[in-house]
Amino acid sequence: MSPSVVIRGGKVVNHDFTEKADVLIEGGKIKEVGHDLPVPKGATVLDATHKLVIPGGIDTHTHMQLPFMGQVAIDDFYSGTRAAVAGGTTMIIDFVIPQKGEGLLGAYDKWRGWADPKVCVDFSFHVAVTWWSDEVKRDMETLVKERGVNSFKIFMAYKGVFQLDDSQMIEVFKTCRELGALAMVHAENGDMVAELQQKMKTLGIMGPEGHALSRPEIVEAEAVNRAIMLSNQSHCPLYVVHVMSKSAADSITLNRQKGQVVFGEPIAASLGTDGTNYFHKCWAHAAGHVLSPPLRPDPTTPMYLMQQLANGNLDCVGTDNCTFNTAQKAVGKDDFTKIPNGVNGVEDRMSIVWTKGVCAGLIDECKFVEVTSSKAAKIFNLYPKKGRVAVGSDADLVVWDTSASRMISKDTHHQAVNFNIFEGQTVFGKPVHVISGGHVVLQDGELKVSRGHGNYIPRQAHCSHVYNILRHREKTEQPVPVTRGPYTGPVAEPAK
Amino acid sequence: MSPSVVIRGGKVVNHDFTEKADVLIEGGKIKEVGHDLPVPKGATVLDATHKLVIPGGIDTHTHMQLPFMGQVAIDDFYSGTRAAVAGGTTMIIDFVIPQKGEGLLGAYDKWRGWADPKVCVDFSFHVAVTWWSDEVKRDMETLVKERGVNSFKIFMAYKGVFQLDDSQMIEVFKTCRELGALAMVHAENGDMVAELQQKMKTLGIMGPEGHALSRPEIVEAEAVNRAIMLSNQSHCPLYVVHVMSKSAADSITLNRQKGQVVFGEPIAASLGTDGTNYFHKCWAHAAGHVLSPPLRPDPTTPMYLMQQLANGNLDCVGTDNCTFNTAQKAVGKDDFTKIPNGVNGVEDRMSIVWTKGVCAGLIDECKFVEVTSSKAAKIFNLYPKKGRVAVGSDADLVVWDTSASRMISKDTHHQAVNFNIFEGQTVFGKPVHVISGGHVVLQDGELKVSRGHGNYIPRQAHCSHVYNILRHREKTEQPVPVTRGPYTGPVAEPAK
Amino acid sequence: MSPSVVIRGGKVVNHDFTEKADVLIEGGKIKEVGHDLPVPKGATVLDATHKLVIPGGIDTHTHMQLPFMGQVAIDDFYSGTRAAVAGGTTMIIDFVIPQKGEGLLGAYDKWRGWADPKVCVDFSFHVAVTWWSDEVKRDMETLVKERGVNSFKIFMAYKGVFQLDDSQMIEVFKTCRELGALAMVHAENGDMVAELQQKMKTLGIMGPEGHALSRPEIVEAEAVNRAIMLSNQSHCPLYVVHVMSKSAADSITLNRQKGQVVFGEPIAASLGTDGTNYFHKCWAHAAGHVLSPPLRPDPTTPMYLMQQLANGNLDCVGTDNCTFNTAQKAVGKDDFTKIPNGVNGVEDRMSIVWTKGVCAGLIDECKFVEVTSSKAAKIFNLYPKKGRVAVGSDADLVVWDTSASRMISKDTHHQAVNFNIFEGQTVFGKPVHVISGGHVVLQDGELKVSRGHGNYIPRQAHCSHVYNILRHREKTEQPVPVTRGPYTGPVAEPAK
Amino acid sequence: MSPSVVIRGGKVVNHDFTEKADVLIEGGKIKEVGHDLPVPKGATVLDATHKLVIPGGIDTHTHMQLPFMGQVAIDDFYSGTRAAVAGGTTMIIDFVIPQKGEGLLGAYDKWRGWADPKVCVDFSFHVAVTWWSDEVKRDMETLVKERGVNSFKIFMAYKGVFQLDDSQMIEVFKTCRELGALAMVHAENGDMVAELQQKMKTLGIMGPEGHALSRPEIVEAEAVNRAIMLSNQSHCPLYVVHVMSKSAADSITLNRQKGQVVFGEPIAASLGTDGTNYFHKCWAHAAGHVLSPPLRPDPTTPMYLMQQLANGNLDCVGTDNCTFNTAQKAVGKDDFTKIPNGVNGVEDRMSIVWTKGVCAGLIDECKFVEVTSSKAAKIFNLYPKKGRVAVGSDADLVVWDTSASRMISKDTHHQAVNFNIFEGQTVFGKPVHVISGGHVVLQDGELKVSRGHGNYIPRQAHCSHVYNILRHREKTEQPVPVTRGPYTGPVAEPAK
Repeated sequence: MSPSVVIRGGKVVNHDFTEKADVLIEGGKIKEVGHDLPVPKGATVLDATHKLVIPGGIDTHTHMQLPFMGQVAIDDFYSGTRAAVAGGTTMIIDFVIPQKGEGLLGAYDKWRGWADPKVCVDFSFHVAVTWWSDEVKRDMETLVKERGVNSFKIFMAYKGVFQLDDSQMIEVFKTCRELGALAMVHAENGDMVAELQQKMKTLGIMGPEGHALSRPEIVEAEAVNRAIMLSNQSHCPLYVVHVMSKSAADSITLNRQKGQVVFGEPIAASLGTDGTNYFHKCWAHAAGHVLSPPLRPDPTTPMYLMQQLANGNLDCVGTDNCTFNTAQKAVGKDDFTKIPNGVNGVEDRMSIVWTKGVCAGLIDECKFVEVTSSKAAKIFNLYPKKGRVAVGSDADLVVWDTSASRMISKDTHHQAVNFNIFEGQTVFGKPVHVISGGHVVLQDGELKVSRGHGNYIPRQAHCSHVYNILRHREKTEQPVPVTRGPYTGPVAEPAK
Repeated sequence: MSPSVVIRGGKVVNHDFTEKADVLIEGGKIKEVGHDLPVPKGATVLDATHKLVIPGGIDTHTHMQLPFMGQVAIDDFYSGTRAAVAGGTTMIIDFVIPQKGEGLLGAYDKWRGWADPKVCVDFSFHVAVTWWSDEVKRDMETLVKERGVNSFKIFMAYKGVFQLDDSQMIEVFKTCRELGALAMVHAENGDMVAELQQKMKTLGIMGPEGHALSRPEIVEAEAVNRAIMLSNQSHCPLYVVHVMSKSAADSITLNRQKGQVVFGEPIAASLGTDGTNYFHKCWAHAAGHVLSPPLRPDPTTPMYLMQQLANGNLDCVGTDNCTFNTAQKAVGKDDFTKIPNGVNGVEDRMSIVWTKGVCAGLIDECKFVEVTSSKAAKIFNLYPKKGRVAVGSDADLVVWDTSASRMISKDTHHQAVNFNIFEGQTVFGKPVHVISGGHVVLQDGELKVSRGHGNYIPRQAHCSHVYNILRHREKTEQPVPVTRGPYTGPVAEPAK
Repeated sequence: MSPSVVIRGGKVVNHDFTEKADVLIEGGKIKEVGHDLPVPKGATVLDATHKLVIPGGIDTHTHMQLPFMGQVAIDDFYSGTRAAVAGGTTMIIDFVIPQKGEGLLGAYDKWRGWADPKVCVDFSFHVAVTWWSDEVKRDMETLVKERGVNSFKIFMAYKGVFQLDDSQMIEVFKTCRELGALAMVHAENGDMVAELQQKMKTLGIMGPEGHALSRPEIVEAEAVNRAIMLSNQSHCPLYVVHVMSKSAADSITLNRQKGQVVFGEPIAASLGTDGTNYFHKCWAHAAGHVLSPPLRPDPTTPMYLMQQLANGNLDCVGTDNCTFNTAQKAVGKDDFTKIPNGVNGVEDRMSIVWTKGVCAGLIDECKFVEVTSSKAAKIFNLYPKKGRVAVGSDADLVVWDTSASRMISKDTHHQAVNFNIFEGQTVFGKPVHVISGGHVVLQDGELKVSRGHGNYIPRQAHCSHVYNILRHREKTEQPVPVTRGPYTGPVAEPAK
Repeated sequence: MSPSVVIRGGKVVNHDFTEKADVLIEGGKIKEVGHDLPVPKGATVLDATHKLVIPGGIDTHTHMQLPFMGQVAIDDFYSGTRAAVAGGTTMIIDFVIPQKGEGLLGAYDKWRGWADPKVCVDFSFHVAVTWWSDEVKRDMETLVKERGVNSFKIFMAYKGVFQLDDSQMIEVFKTCRELGALAMVHAENGDMVAELQQKMKTLGIMGPEGHALSRPEIVEAEAVNRAIMLSNQSHCPLYVVHVMSKSAADSITLNRQKGQVVFGEPIAASLGTDGTNYFHKCWAHAAGHVLSPPLRPDPTTPMYLMQQLANGNLDCVGTDNCTFNTAQKAVGKDDFTKIPNGVNGVEDRMSIVWTKGVCAGLIDECKFVEVTSSKAAKIFNLYPKKGRVAVGSDADLVVWDTSASRMISKDTHHQAVNFNIFEGQTVFGKPVHVISGGHVVLQDGELKVSRGHGNYIPRQAHCSHVYNILRHREKTEQPVPVTRGPYTGPVAEPAK
């Protein structure tokens, strides 16, 4: 049982308002929020004067130690979640990704086996659906009802590997709707990507710039638009992972304006850097930025995506953290299609959002909390257990120093990977103390994490935040036949 | 001192989540929210089984007993706020409107004199700026610093009466910014309206349809767009009162997409009925719908505005409640420009939003709370004192029966006016119990209000919800001169 | 050899300007346009005083005597083109539609065999690509190089019958680009349609309303957006046939704003009536309106599409004329998915556009000529041979009486079919005289057509109007590899 | 009388199609367009092999020798029109700008007195309305009916100098409508500009960057939107001069989408350079770019505006050519508000459009002709006399060498001014021969102009291209009163 902790003198920031208040933590939960709270005996007291007290960050999108493209991501559930803490994130939602033909339940168990002994913070799992069969459908049901999974991801790209076609997507969406789960989508038109990859090779383009050139942003935007149509027509809400481009964000915005239920997740990478890096003269530098969909050459993309978070057209920030060392990236040194896809982010996400959002005058501190934590908690049905500083909520908290700055570097970061896409950027905002489940895991900037400390957090299906509207509409807009007398006239014979 | 009250067995709905919980009220405040709360001795127990417990509605826009166009609005601060309670609203923000040349402070005192002895619920005042001088500016400062006013309204229409020109608007916006107040605007191009009124009369159009025809929606949309530019360039946030048209909503949405700070308020009238009524064959019916800007003939307007509330492009719902009996309207029987402007709404607002929003599948119950209460509280700096069911908040609460329905009629409504723009509409959702400041003012559908029970609620300036972004930008985007050597070349003489 | 004709005293209207002028016709061509032209001996003189002299209409989209869904369309190349003349149309472009597996050349020959002996006006053929193979590709080449075909159509719907998937579409687009042909697309997501058809049947909806309900407009808009991406990424221009909805038109507009090369064709049906008809109590009436994509229940659709023609976001007007008698429609009397798809339009198109466009104040007479004739001629590489009243152009001309009106009815129309979707509508504008290839085929309202009079018009590929931009970009935007030194660092082994 | 000219072997490009053809010119008019035309005796033969033959450019917006801000523009009607010829432009439309209080007719005469003896090409005049009175209205009528003026310009900026308020604008629009003239507008909110100028000075910003900072693009976009509303509600078409920003272009596009009649004119400056120049370290360089509205710091502006020309959302390209030498600019060396506004363009316009449009793959050669010549001719009622290569049109022609390139420089340009905003840019496309009114004024790159050779071209009012739609709507949408029985109920007394 964790000891009591009192956070003293800070400004508590929730997504809806702020107040000067102390926070008392007991038994892993927030016990009290108020002025001049008395300190229980033996309690740790953390000073938060002139600092913010915010709900711990939730990274909605990570791939720790993912086996992918012949390699295994170098940050595992230990180094990855440790780095998360260092950056102010106290929960990750990772992805179970079965191979085509592999059972979903078995894959889930495998991933739990990897994660449970290593995680330093609470975590949960989305599960990918990479093929379709009755067995897959049954596994989805079991995962929802017995494993606390309420979100499934579809790939519209990676042709021949993970990609589903429209018919299969419809089946997944229908199953999600039946189960009350949220559908997620990697949105790129995989057929077009395959075509353009071939074209680039024909043109003799084998370097990382080929990655960007074969996945133009319109290919992402198209898939976003299609996925929204297919899901909403199936009465299934949709969550678009890694929104990378202005066009993709626009697809989401326009569909929302018309009442479609869709959520959008930009990532640290798309908010913090851009696709000009693919044209860098150093191969390792360029390859280090390869992820899919790619970063965009248009340098106004990051600010645009942040503005859409500000407007509420996008929702929450993930990372797609999936790190490969340069030597791993180098398996694609002669062919960009072989470069393992993935970049870092889990550690720097909070600072990137603070810097590009709050410091840039696009969002305020409440919105910062919303996009880094509260909205994710709502969408994935964890709120207000997670995502809020309130009595009864989990004591996942961060004392955030808005005046601190640091320069990001692979040499100083806590991730295992030997490259950082934000290398050299000066960012603002930094955690001073981090509390996970009532335990102080970062104190005065010092990490105190322990392997396996985190818990798997099951998530209920039928989350009202994502399903309320569609459920209601499905009922009230149920079509009914027109009542008519029978047609009694002549009927033609078939033509010969 | 008010007795304790326990609300038992309901579903507490806040804008961010819902929970089954009891609510304990003491001393006019919410004391506890939790499961199976014990009932203090002498406490009133209200049953909320199968019902929602929501923050009392806040009507952001009323004109009780307003002297206007030669008449005085028939619903005064008593009948008006009594009707508010009947509909589930526990706070109104009314407007002090001085004549051109009249001091703002004096007008404020006059309005307080009218309201204080009569109000049945808490209230506050916006103040209109209808002319400009150093005295006006000084009065604004006093109102902010000593009277708890943090919002000022400008009229872009009513040429020659209330209308300010662009230069004057800029002065008001600059003053608001200095004081940390929110600027509000009645958005219609008054010059164009005057021109079109004259045109309609020239064409022999003297009936209420002339009201609609002389104020087409593009005239509203233009003014919205202009006001946003003028205010934001002055680093002043803007609140657009009574958004009546799709075009006006689009103006707001597009400007928001680009980061302008602007809030939009549709009203019960624009969400619940439309401008086809102006073409009604009965003069009294048509005249009964006259308000400015007018309702729009496009019958898809109400649903569109509700969709924008759903998307977060519009913010909160007011009424512009300003009622005149048919005989009062009839002073304009031969000339539509003489019909006193104004309609009802304060009583029916909550049910209209529930019906057109929740029942129509456009918003859910959390969003219902947001647009009828919480967002208004945030914008006008009353949150979480108002607008939230939470420990420490004011006990302004409504037990809302989602299954109840009623047919709206002037014959059964509680307002003093003898006409109702929603006449004959069946609406859903109804308050069973209403609590104002801890007092049960509606119990099992029975009104128990008392004159003067409500309190004037002063509001602090520098509301972070409206000013955070602009303040930050003003600092970081402060322009600086380019450093250059002096120009040393020849300089021309003036031409003759 | 045709005799000389002089059209006297009319106002010659081209898409770019108008002038009072006589027109002299000789040898099937326009010989002179000018004032007070002398009348050659033996020439027919047609009076055009107070009337317009316009280029004959071009219907870009017909299916005469199409074998489809077990029936053969009742209007054949004779009755269909005769009706065309009656309405002011002097050229049709019909579709050759091979079955899956059928050679394109053979199908082309079959269609020529049907058309040549019957046509009363000039005609040409688009060819549909309903399956994919090397043979199909070879046939496309032959059709372009030896048969004068420069446009090929793809179906994204009719799953299992005509539908191609994204990979196949890319192949067609690439082949079109190589050949300089224009790709056309029937845009509906066929997988979603199949799903929704099944759903409607499950709900017991078997009547024509099921047709509308299973093909909502978002299903059309999605496909439009996808087709534009796939074609333009293949450097192939796209022509969207039968634009039926506001959403589909918006897809085109938005993509054009970004520089995508795409053309949009609304049809007489989508401009002249709407989808409320599917909910009609009379089965035969409802079924009579069945075509795909369906008409839209939103009654503001026709005016919206016309406005987009006015703005230049849509291009030209076809009809998708494909008529079935009620008895033919009745093969689907118990199952809407069996109702043969198709409606009339070839006769009424010009009057519908005049009425809904010019009379409604959305377009003027020049734009009328553009959207009914000139733009089609440009897109399909027939301009200025067709589509312009100018010296040297084909003498396909109409003397148009703007003051005439008529009521449309199956009882008076010239088409063979026993139903008219515009039944009862009063339309304005009517041909007084029609000249086809120099021959007067309608004189003073009297038809004088003859079977087989029309000629097959071959069309050159590489039409500059559709290919100029994309060709240029393909060259200048050709991606090139980044020049880099080799990566010389370590390379990881594959993970086990 | 001019001798015959034959242009041999070129590709004749009109806005709607191209053809290989010779052009025969006689008597200042085009006599024949055709293949292998015989050469009349004594005719000049110009070779156009591998070159385009296009209608001479029309610059819709110049200010030769304008007295402005205490200086007189250095390019007068001679040097300015001579430079026009050098660049391929054969007609300018300049502005008569009376002072407040000055009669319009008198000003017109003065301007004619300046222009007539100097012009090297045909020209015409717009007239500005800078104040309002009955006399102004009468002068407008005289100018339309007796002087061939069909376009009047309003300034929404230059507060206290030229600026009109909304009421006055409405009067001008109504008068234009009565006379069948086109209204033009300089769109910037002058009140906001004045406010921001003051602000910049307060901040110590006295250099040319203050010009940009005090006129942000939203200030332009707002005014565009307002002007469209005011004009169209007055049934008057609108032409927005010098569209300088993406936002302003968007205002036009969005209003067009809704059917408003408005035309937009980007200029060579806004298509060919950008507002980063205002922040240049050299004062003279920065000041050399000062014009109003200013160039925009967003470097994607030029391409965006070109794309809108491509889409048809903008119409034709002017220059706002109004040149001041550096010494003249220097009167504002200590105060940016005193820098005479204006830049060059009349010479380079055609090459800038070719380079940024055709070479960039945004427009093709037909569109090039449209935006540099034909559309201007249509809008100002000169078509097809000007703007078309056709029999009977004026022989204003250019033989355009698409393969030629040149580097723009003040050292080599033909304008009198000692600065060029396109300095150092390499542009493509260049006139080889230019013919004005049948005279060869540039031959093989050699200028052969003569002072006073050009003619004043009167323009008819009631141009169908701009008025057709609004005239029709005014008639058909004329509002009518609702027929009702009288109101017979009670009527209230006025309140005391």
